Amino acid sequence: MNYKMIGRFLAQIVAVEAVFLLPALGISLGHGEVHTALAFCQTLAIMAIVGGGLWLLCRKAGKLFGAKEGMVCVSLSWALMSVLGCLPFVLSGQIPRFIDALFETVSGFTTTGASVLADVEALSKGLLYWRSFSHWVGGMGVLVFLLAISPSDGQGKGFTMHLLRAESPGPDVGKLVPKMKKTATILYMIYIVMTVVCFVFLLLGNMDALEALCTAFGTAGTGGFGVRNDSMASYSPYIQNVCSVFMFLFGVNFSCYYLLLLGKLRGVFKDEELRLYMGIALGTIVLIVLNIRPLYGTLEETIRHAAFQVSSIMTTTGFATTDFDLWPAFSKGLLLMLMVVGACAGSTGGGLKCARVLLLFKSLRRNIRQVLYPKKVQVVRTNGRVVNETVLDNTNAYLAAYIIILILSVLLVARDGYSIGTNLSAVLACFNNIGPGMELVGPTCNYAHFGLGSKLVLIIDMLAGRLEIFPMLILLSRSTWKDR
Amino acid sequence: MNYKMIGRFLAQIVAVEAVFLLPALGISLGHGEVHTALAFCQTLAIMAIVGGGLWLLCRKAGKLFGAKEGMVCVSLSWALMSVLGCLPFVLSGQIPRFIDALFETVSGFTTTGASVLADVEALSKGLLYWRSFSHWVGGMGVLVFLLAISPSDGQGKGFTMHLLRAESPGPDVGKLVPKMKKTATILYMIYIVMTVVCFVFLLLGNMDALEALCTAFGTAGTGGFGVRNDSMASYSPYIQNVCSVFMFLFGVNFSCYYLLLLGKLRGVFKDEELRLYMGIALGTIVLIVLNIRPLYGTLEETIRHAAFQVSSIMTTTGFATTDFDLWPAFSKGLLLMLMVVGACAGSTGGGLKCARVLLLFKSLRRNIRQVLYPKKVQVVRTNGRVVNETVLDNTNAYLAAYIIILILSVLLVARDGYSIGTNLSAVLACFNNIGPGMELVGPTCNYAHFGLGSKLVLIIDMLAGRLEIFPMLILLSRSTWKDR
Repeated sequence: MNYKMIGRFLAQIVAVEAVFLLPALGISLGHGEVHTALAFCQTLAIMAIVGGGLWLLCRKAGKLFGAKEGMVCVSLSWALMSVLGCLPFVLSGQIPRFIDALFETVSGFTTTGASVLADVEALSKGLLYWRSFSHWVGGMGVLVFLLAISPSDGQGKGFTMHLLRAESPGPDVGKLVPKMKKTATILYMIYIVMTVVCFVFLLLGNMDALEALCTAFGTAGTGGFGVRNDSMASYSPYIQNVCSVFMFLFGVNFSCYYLLLLGKLRGVFKDEELRLYMGIALGTIVLIVLNIRPLYGTLEETIRHAAFQVSSIMTTTGFATTDFDLWPAFSKGLLLMLMVVGACAGSTGGGLKCARVLLLFKSLRRNIRQVLYPKKVQVVRTNGRVVNETVLDNTNAYLAAYIIILILSVLLVARDGYSIGTNLSAVLACFNNIGPGMELVGPTCNYAHFGLGSKLVLIIDMLAGRLEIFPMLILLSRSTWKDR
Repeated sequence: MNYKMIGRFLAQIVAVEAVFLLPALGISLGHGEVHTALAFCQTLAIMAIVGGGLWLLCRKAGKLFGAKEGMVCVSLSWALMSVLGCLPFVLSGQIPRFIDALFETVSGFTTTGASVLADVEALSKGLLYWRSFSHWVGGMGVLVFLLAISPSDGQGKGFTMHLLRAESPGPDVGKLVPKMKKTATILYMIYIVMTVVCFVFLLLGNMDALEALCTAFGTAGTGGFGVRNDSMASYSPYIQNVCSVFMFLFGVNFSCYYLLLLGKLRGVFKDEELRLYMGIALGTIVLIVLNIRPLYGTLEETIRHAAFQVSSIMTTTGFATTDFDLWPAFSKGLLLMLMVVGACAGSTGGGLKCARVLLLFKSLRRNIRQVLYPKKVQVVRTNGRVVNETVLDNTNAYLAAYIIILILSVLLVARDGYSIGTNLSAVLACFNNIGPGMELVGPTCNYAHFGLGSKLVLIIDMLAGRLEIFPMLILLSRSTWKDR
């Protein structure tokens, strides 16, 4: 294990985070929030010490870097970013307990959107901005950002590939272009442009500028931190519909947008994952509309709420325009299913990912055929191409790890004594990076009431969900720390 | 597809079931239950018509038989057995609605033990016996029985192997001895002897003979139909402890007992699945005892209830000595986890099976190592031997199919509008062949309140769980019905 290299990498991450903190400092100064500004300055000082120290200790590192180091870098970066990122909340006294601030920050970076705050509106503007901005950074990944801005592919090709693979969601890294740095840059360009468009659409709905910015961050990162206590319920139908559409768009695999830019329309519309994603979304919207029609006055309102909630849960954003915990059990069951399925691979959304669901179904079908015709070699294809057996193996292992973590988490959280529905939906909502669950963690509630142990479990779940389990599991493997 | 062969096979199954019905008829006559006896006779007449008809139509079938036909035979046999087996309940008027009687019978044959009856004690003795006996038949499998008694391996070696593979639980058929017929006979001999021993131990506890017989059937098949309304709560501690021990014993892979008979003690105690099974059971008993200690007067009582419930749920039997739905959430979470894990492969228990859990963990660890050292070929071993990749593939496919069916079932059952805990635990309890779940399907409740659609879903879940999914899925595959 190349510890010095990891240390130097972490120093760079701290530097990037410090730069990200500056606009938040500016906003709090602009609004005359002295306490918050002071907390940001103290945090910057701590970052300077930690980052500077790491740099001084580890600057003379070699360049040899493998998959193992890449994975460990990803996990440790996210952990360090979260611990430092939560300091403004603690130091300003607005979330005084460290565990709560850490929960809120991890929830931000992992684009979960689960909150411990009952009164969001009481937060200062600077912290409100920082909280929502963490969604935006976490959505595309801060390591991907570092790749995009770093001077060249200087870190060694293997390393950058492993970083991108570990931080980008999905069973297979869709290599847009052979050069990793270029891929990272293209991803961020698309991301920035789409966020700006979303922001403009929100402004056109007469939204306050800061509120629109925060909402655009939450939508783009498929995060879900709202700036109002009722999430999105009090906004106009126009704003709600804009969010519905943009959440859905940010849940699409970004390589589809790249193909669109290249004019390859056929490729996009034939993409099996995109078709599955749209099919599931449309199907569940129709089923939910039929199920909840009696609850709302007009058909327009019913469709708007159904579409918003489906888009929000499926893309694992977690905004809400209505208390879906009051919906009938069938609709709630559909939402729980969407929580597990999640958005597309290569998007900012979480969950198992449609691509994985597709592969699981296809490899199951292959398996059935194999039983029927044991002598015929069967392959799995997506979009006409044969899927590598390693990808299938990894997808299956992913499901196994997913189930094991899910069961253990529910068990540990159950020690707080809540109902099965609360425990299961809290873990699903955190693990899949959604935010609100059902019952005691429904859209009108928050996570403050959980005990210390449960909050820690949920924090680990959020990180495991965002980083797709393996970088976290590798930290626990003995072989990682054994030098050979 | 060789339809005639399947037809002839089904005719034999009907004949076996008719023979099995005779003792039940005798018991009802012995107790002077004219109505019940009449219902049994009517059922026998219908069986004669159905079985005779099938035999006349299909007796001249060839012998070519593959995996496909084996799977279809298993699924159709179980469906036919259940439809015919529920007739005595309907015809006697004791469970007047067909769907309820079918639910009860499928629950019996699949060794689930989920009941629609609020007042079990009101059933006539003949039907009580038939209901419990269905557990015993279903536990080891009626097709295995047919193999054991059939004159020779005349059906073709491929066919019998596929039959045994489809009906015996577990990721891999532990071939005891090369000859299938001999394997089937040994399995049934062990099963009969252990059932008799259990029956004798129950008699020694001053239990009524018929009650002891029914309880022994329910224990041996890990079924769980009780003969009293409070399941096992009103029995003496001695009886409860006898059941605890025997449920646990019937959850052990039967090939361990064969090895014991051969004097191969080392092989048994080194068996990794057996160790995992005992480890999980002991671990959860300790955790539950610590968690529920305040609920019971003495430590003896606490341990007795904890051990009984763990043994009952883990082996997927479903007897209860106390209302575990009133236990704290942590203990209930542990029980839900045990529901999924289940007993050993090659036992009469259900669930995922410890062998599969072991393989899933091992192949996950292999996968992590593969990520760390991509160039090294990694293999999975159990009991020192390398596991075939096909077995691993099948285990992974099994988990995927399990999850998909679980999610869809919960969704469909949710249409009745119950809580998440009720829906989830009802599906888990039926799919894993346990019986009682939590909340509205807890040990003091029953399944009568579900709607027609939900009951159908749960019936399919019970069959899919008992037959380990694939024989059921194959009925849905287009390639099964396509001749090439």
